[in-house]
Amino acid sequence: MDRIVKTLTWNKDYLEIIDQTLLPLDEKYIKIKTIEAVWEAIRGLHIRGAPAIGVASAFGLVLAAKKYKGKNKDKFFSIFEDNISYMKTARPTAYNLFYGLARLKKSAYENYRKSIPELQDIIEKEAEKMFDEDMESCKNIGENGSSLIKDNINVLSHCNAGGLATTGFGTSLSVFYFAWDKGRKFRVFVDETRPVLQGARLTTWELKKAGIPHTLICDSTAAFLMQQKKIDIVIVGADRICANGDTANKIGTYNIAVIAAYHKIPFYIAAPLSTFDFSLKSGDQIPIEERPGEEVTDLGCIRITPEETDAYNPAFDVTPAKLIKGFITEKGIFSPKNLFTLKKI
Amino acid sequence: MDRIVKTLTWNKDYLEIIDQTLLPLDEKYIKIKTIEAVWEAIRGLHIRGAPAIGVASAFGLVLAAKKYKGKNKDKFFSIFEDNISYMKTARPTAYNLFYGLARLKKSAYENYRKSIPELQDIIEKEAEKMFDEDMESCKNIGENGSSLIKDNINVLSHCNAGGLATTGFGTSLSVFYFAWDKGRKFRVFVDETRPVLQGARLTTWELKKAGIPHTLICDSTAAFLMQQKKIDIVIVGADRICANGDTANKIGTYNIAVIAAYHKIPFYIAAPLSTFDFSLKSGDQIPIEERPGEEVTDLGCIRITPEETDAYNPAFDVTPAKLIKGFITEKGIFSPKNLFTLKKI
Repeated sequence: MDRIVKTLTWNKDYLEIIDQTLLPLDEKYIKIKTIEAVWEAIRGLHIRGAPAIGVASAFGLVLAAKKYKGKNKDKFFSIFEDNISYMKTARPTAYNLFYGLARLKKSAYENYRKSIPELQDIIEKEAEKMFDEDMESCKNIGENGSSLIKDNINVLSHCNAGGLATTGFGTSLSVFYFAWDKGRKFRVFVDETRPVLQGARLTTWELKKAGIPHTLICDSTAAFLMQQKKIDIVIVGADRICANGDTANKIGTYNIAVIAAYHKIPFYIAAPLSTFDFSLKSGDQIPIEERPGEEVTDLGCIRITPEETDAYNPAFDVTPAKLIKGFITEKGIFSPKNLFTLKKI
Repeated sequence: MDRIVKTLTWNKDYLEIIDQTLLPLDEKYIKIKTIEAVWEAIRGLHIRGAPAIGVASAFGLVLAAKKYKGKNKDKFFSIFEDNISYMKTARPTAYNLFYGLARLKKSAYENYRKSIPELQDIIEKEAEKMFDEDMESCKNIGENGSSLIKDNINVLSHCNAGGLATTGFGTSLSVFYFAWDKGRKFRVFVDETRPVLQGARLTTWELKKAGIPHTLICDSTAAFLMQQKKIDIVIVGADRICANGDTANKIGTYNIAVIAAYHKIPFYIAAPLSTFDFSLKSGDQIPIEERPGEEVTDLGCIRITPEETDAYNPAFDVTPAKLIKGFITEKGIFSPKNLFTLKKI
């Protein structure tokens, strides 16, 4: 299978991304040539989704590293470290951002004795390797999860954990793509995912491209569908998974996990190893990004609430491991209690 | 206390309503002179909220009845019955619509021997009585429920069960108004209530007028707040309550009831007796209105999803009695198990 969408493409001098804030109305690609522009693209949700953020931020660091034309290695590393610190401030929750930067840092320091041009090349190759690994991981997630999609079932998705959230294949949507490719027939109920509407704008766009039957619903309609036994399984993505299995994902995910448990519907997380943060014991340690209230009070440029209405807009929530039946990863499906075996890998 | 808003005002020749589709951006009042225009105003959500629909539809029937200038009583009653049948088709779920029309029908037939002008007068007086009763009921609901609002708590509201949903005082919001008037300090978390955003547009507007502190949230954020112990009580309105306590209300209400139960947070319904349909044994008998998918796929006039995306848009859901701690009515607070005592009243 080809990738569903060219979410991000590396071109040596620039990173090309599809501007996700304009989808589905406009399919526009933008060229990004500086680390600052990558930072802005991530902060402004032009590129989003934990795995995509991880790879994009790595290329941001590559763009900055390649700019150094001097010969002072201490200065090169000093700037390199500054850029890592800067890039880390783009968004706080998705672990892949920190994972990607840490990998580039490690590969650079492991080759400290090499020349600066060699180091620049090593860093770039490491980022390219991350890109390829993400693509491969997503395909394996799709393959591993596809057995969960039985014929004639209805699945629930939240936010966008598709090609757009990764290098081009998706995590939870990859599961649907592989199941569909194997001839399984099913329908995806797509949570619109307020406030930024990643479900309504992005997931519908991908599923339409893939030809998979789907129905858009308001987030609060999912419980009503579950009550009527119209949802058989829930599969969502993740932004950060702790050692005990507690999982940060798009706001509303915890709500779904609770209602799924109430209706005895299996709830799965699909994510690559790059989203697992084994340094955190439990979910209360995950920093939760709070975004501007205007994402809630305004629709597009139109204010829909009275002036001065305050909105509370956390971008993520944390689902405790006990509500999660399994993690669909590139290494197989693991229950929260078996995550320690994944840590060893 | 004065009523919060002139939701609907009867002026003998016309019904004046505030156009709720334009709030909060525009505060515009419209004069309605025919039953067809009342029907359209209800179907198009220019006036909404079960008690307000009940009273408005009664005045719609009055407008039609007063139009008859002939002397043939059989014809008068035949047209009257036709208009009742027509008015019933405006929206299917809110019981108050049927309750109001049934009351007018009963008072007309009880006075069958009177002259047509007398009958027209009797019907009008009955509608005016319903208006006054609704105002009184809402105040009593507010008084009866206010003891539930302790100092320094956070309450969760969904949709708009305020002055705008009634003749001008509200059901669940009346509880907040009375508690605030008694000096209780508290904060209301306002669910935005997709897709029509009655929370974001209408409840915020009312609470701002009343000076009650409030914070707008996306519907799916409520569970996250509950997880953090930031919600102490949930009070919502109702569109129809069955004999066993099963309750239809705005889509998303069932979701809230489930997450409230999970977090052991008391969940209350505030509604007048006119919303109780003792003829229905349980919630599976309540007809649920399905509204156009465009309410979900479009924001204002802008399509936000790919063309041809299907949306499923039920306007209501049914919360089973077992998830409801109590019904706040004008006659006091009743648990689902004690509803039979209310039936006797």
